[in-house]
Amino acid sequence: MQLNSLILSVIKQLFPARQWLKNYKTEHFNGDLIAALIVTIMLIPQSLAYALLAGLPAEMGLYASILPLVFYGFLGSSYSLSVGPVAIISLMTASAVMPIASPESPAYTTLAILLAFISGLVLLLLGILRFGFIANFLSHPVVSGFISASGIIIIISQLKHLLGIPVSGDNLITQGTTLFQSIPAMHSTTCILAISCLAGLWWLRRCFLRYFPTWGVPLHYAQLLSKAAPVIVILLATLTTYYFRLDLKGVAIVGEIPKGLPQLSWPTMTGAHWQQLTSSALLIAIIGFIESISIGKTLAAKKRQRINPNQELIGLGSANLASAFSGGFPVTGGFSRSVVNFDAGASTPAAGIFAALGIAIVALWLTPLLFYLPKAALAVTIVMAVISLIDIGLIRKAWRYSRTEFTGITTTLTITLFFGVEYGVLSGVAISVSLHLLKTARPHIAVVGEIPGTEHFRNIQRHNVITYPHIISIRVDESLYFANSSFLEDKIYSLIAQNTKVKHVILMCTAINEIDLSALETLEVINCRLQELNIHFHLSEVKGPVMDTLQKTTFTKQLNGNIYLSQHQAIEDLKTAP
Amino acid sequence: MQLNSLILSVIKQLFPARQWLKNYKTEHFNGDLIAALIVTIMLIPQSLAYALLAGLPAEMGLYASILPLVFYGFLGSSYSLSVGPVAIISLMTASAVMPIASPESPAYTTLAILLAFISGLVLLLLGILRFGFIANFLSHPVVSGFISASGIIIIISQLKHLLGIPVSGDNLITQGTTLFQSIPAMHSTTCILAISCLAGLWWLRRCFLRYFPTWGVPLHYAQLLSKAAPVIVILLATLTTYYFRLDLKGVAIVGEIPKGLPQLSWPTMTGAHWQQLTSSALLIAIIGFIESISIGKTLAAKKRQRINPNQELIGLGSANLASAFSGGFPVTGGFSRSVVNFDAGASTPAAGIFAALGIAIVALWLTPLLFYLPKAALAVTIVMAVISLIDIGLIRKAWRYSRTEFTGITTTLTITLFFGVEYGVLSGVAISVSLHLLKTARPHIAVVGEIPGTEHFRNIQRHNVITYPHIISIRVDESLYFANSSFLEDKIYSLIAQNTKVKHVILMCTAINEIDLSALETLEVINCRLQELNIHFHLSEVKGPVMDTLQKTTFTKQLNGNIYLSQHQAIEDLKTAP
Repeated sequence: MQLNSLILSVIKQLFPARQWLKNYKTEHFNGDLIAALIVTIMLIPQSLAYALLAGLPAEMGLYASILPLVFYGFLGSSYSLSVGPVAIISLMTASAVMPIASPESPAYTTLAILLAFISGLVLLLLGILRFGFIANFLSHPVVSGFISASGIIIIISQLKHLLGIPVSGDNLITQGTTLFQSIPAMHSTTCILAISCLAGLWWLRRCFLRYFPTWGVPLHYAQLLSKAAPVIVILLATLTTYYFRLDLKGVAIVGEIPKGLPQLSWPTMTGAHWQQLTSSALLIAIIGFIESISIGKTLAAKKRQRINPNQELIGLGSANLASAFSGGFPVTGGFSRSVVNFDAGASTPAAGIFAALGIAIVALWLTPLLFYLPKAALAVTIVMAVISLIDIGLIRKAWRYSRTEFTGITTTLTITLFFGVEYGVLSGVAISVSLHLLKTARPHIAVVGEIPGTEHFRNIQRHNVITYPHIISIRVDESLYFANSSFLEDKIYSLIAQNTKVKHVILMCTAINEIDLSALETLEVINCRLQELNIHFHLSEVKGPVMDTLQKTTFTKQLNGNIYLSQHQAIEDLKTAP
Repeated sequence: MQLNSLILSVIKQLFPARQWLKNYKTEHFNGDLIAALIVTIMLIPQSLAYALLAGLPAEMGLYASILPLVFYGFLGSSYSLSVGPVAIISLMTASAVMPIASPESPAYTTLAILLAFISGLVLLLLGILRFGFIANFLSHPVVSGFISASGIIIIISQLKHLLGIPVSGDNLITQGTTLFQSIPAMHSTTCILAISCLAGLWWLRRCFLRYFPTWGVPLHYAQLLSKAAPVIVILLATLTTYYFRLDLKGVAIVGEIPKGLPQLSWPTMTGAHWQQLTSSALLIAIIGFIESISIGKTLAAKKRQRINPNQELIGLGSANLASAFSGGFPVTGGFSRSVVNFDAGASTPAAGIFAALGIAIVALWLTPLLFYLPKAALAVTIVMAVISLIDIGLIRKAWRYSRTEFTGITTTLTITLFFGVEYGVLSGVAISVSLHLLKTARPHIAVVGEIPGTEHFRNIQRHNVITYPHIISIRVDESLYFANSSFLEDKIYSLIAQNTKVKHVILMCTAINEIDLSALETLEVINCRLQELNIHFHLSEVKGPVMDTLQKTTFTKQLNGNIYLSQHQAIEDLKTAP
């Protein structure tokens, strides 16, 4: 019986799709099919664009949008998430592989595939070890600073396609230098095309959102249509390029994309490449996971559904492995496409699987239609997509909210801009954690006294309270742990150094949810020192769980004083003591 | 006036010795002189031994015990701390320089001096920036694990002197390998000498502590004398070596130590060496500071004196710079010698300055007396000194106290043993911080209800309380910050997913001392999601400072519910609401 239920729970974890498959109905099928159709149309230019952003051949974008969607559909836990190449992860891929191989070389492609493979393994491993909680260890301001900076870097990186000049690098300095050097070589036809696309895209979106509702189109559809605007722009740009043969005038086009489905093969790898890519793969895995889970949670909450972070890790891990085995590059859940998928009525992960079929059909037969697609038009869609990532509002909000948060966000932003995405993420984590520790390392400590006629104790600096010269009562408003215990120690020593009449120190533990071993050692030291000075050290109002841990040690026996249930009782007992 | 007081405070910080100098009396002088004499005698073998441990010529140990003591005396804040070469820092010096230059080569010496210089700069900078609090960010168990492992590594490293064979490396694997390879080449005379010294030292200590008090010597002096035992052993070992000319039989001796005071000179440095040594210097600075400040605090507390961490950084920084300029290596406050200094009656930092004079006299005229000192005897004193660093007791205590603490201590110990001291420290910091974050990332969250007839609210799982089907009251026992806010979000969603009748969610904020920006954003998201589900989101019992920060934002306006002063009031208001 027990073995059976264990096997069942393993199957459930390995194959969460069981749940929606067994209840799959016709109405689900209809919703999923429509959503898949819309997402497919949207995915085609996006996949190509992000492949180019990552410095890879366009077809790899398509490959990364077929098998990964199928695997995520069966193994992921979100019902609405659409997986595939996304802007930030493509940028991170470029910045990981660029230092090792030159873009568009076969070695570069091999390394990008290996990167997907290692990221996939990392995600899968984290999922099996149930490390889904790691997404919580980056603070929002830091993630937002990182994403804003990445958005700026991506926009600058697209200038090469918009202006028809070469720009390279993964941070502001290297990109800025090559950009300024190449400005004289700007290609005017490309520029005009890019500006037309930008203006067209901007106008179309506005038009859809403003006029369609007045023509009787429901707002919901108008919003959905406005998200299809990039497809219209790309279609028009392709037709223009074909009609005027702009490619012969020097406008860069996507060109020939090999027809057919990707070949399945084991990624090429060497020990040296593993070493060079592992740290990048780890960061890509974590950032991809954070991006994906936050979208997944937002969409799930709208339908009162739940996301299982560990299952998400397994879903994304298998999607990346699938990407690696089918010649793709690192993928994760994308924001805009997931929202479109959700809004278009996708009700199960089958929508993603149908979209994969759609892309497969494109890869098999329709790639010739993409021949004249100008790269500048793809760059325009990237730029318009990432502009929304740059979150000036949050920076302003952080400034108003607290200086520490503002420091966190601006430092991450600056480091990402000037030292590249990997340093950006790492320093972001370090900054979040340090700022948090700094805040809890100096807890609020109040000397308290009894409010006359009550059993309440309050800060002596804020209230008129009764105190006794031979007793000091101290309240700490934080759990005691290694980073703040010596702050308490210093505080107690300085209080008794100021007041030589003291014979009793009472530590009021109302706000202490935990005492770690370092803090316990500090309490023992305080107890010893006070004993040497003939001062008694008492505790009051110790919480149940804290008392349980203390009783595992000899501290309660060593204590040169008493442990009182209430502070009032402590004062009653000690006020007449010598 | 204001300028005057500013200048005065700068002078006070730059020159804390002003305080004790202006009250210096004859009784201080007597106590300091006696303490200095005893410390000098103890320091001679210690300085030589730690220089050899660091792989440096013996005289550098003496040089590191002259000027640094003077500078610390004038600029440090402890009245009892004795600065100089110590075991752990000497080991860290060896493991930093060993990969770059071969021991006892001139390049090795130059690098050790540069290491002292960079560590000194780091400490001084930290002091000026008032970063004294950083010592708190390593938990006790982690520091103890690191120190125990270093003790084991030091003992194994001394086996080469005890057995008369070559052993090298800074971790267990490299040392173990060379040790086992060389065992057949063991030098029997050296071994016999070493064993005699060990036995003699052990017997002397025992004898002093056990019999002297019975002969009428006060326990205090017996303890002080037992600490001088190593000096007696070294004296006897030197005489034996000289009398039997053991050096001709292959026993390694200290040999000729150049007479005279160290030459003052600017440390030799290149950019490449700075790059190679900076991270090691940073770790040496921090570990040295932690070791020193914990001794300083212990001794100061005994006399109700105070240690100023920032002043300590300046004192230790200047001591290291002085060491570098006078041909020494990294130094810090040593445990045993500081205790001896304290017990022998040192009452001001002048004791340290007098001890420096003592060592200077030795360096000037008495080095020939050290010629026949066998290295094996020095190794014995090192081994006896570091045995006490290995703290098995704390490992056992951590095991009983909590599994997390035990994991922290054993991981640090293992990493230090097998990967060397630098990885040990770094992983120690990472482990302390991660374990702490993990604990606070899953705070205790209780669903609460009102105890009948009172205004008290308690956990519904532990008490008989009144609840209403359309209201859920939730209490979080921790401040809300980035690492735990999404845990709360998940909890709320899962509670309302289970209970479809809910129309009101009340977050009871009694234990929330702070809400950071990430947590605020999460509260905003929760508010939005609940609004979409037609559920009202209320707060109750928000603390003053938290309310102040919330009012800087638009959250209080967006809130799809009310903020109640008390939970009781919230329930009274909502229990009849639809």
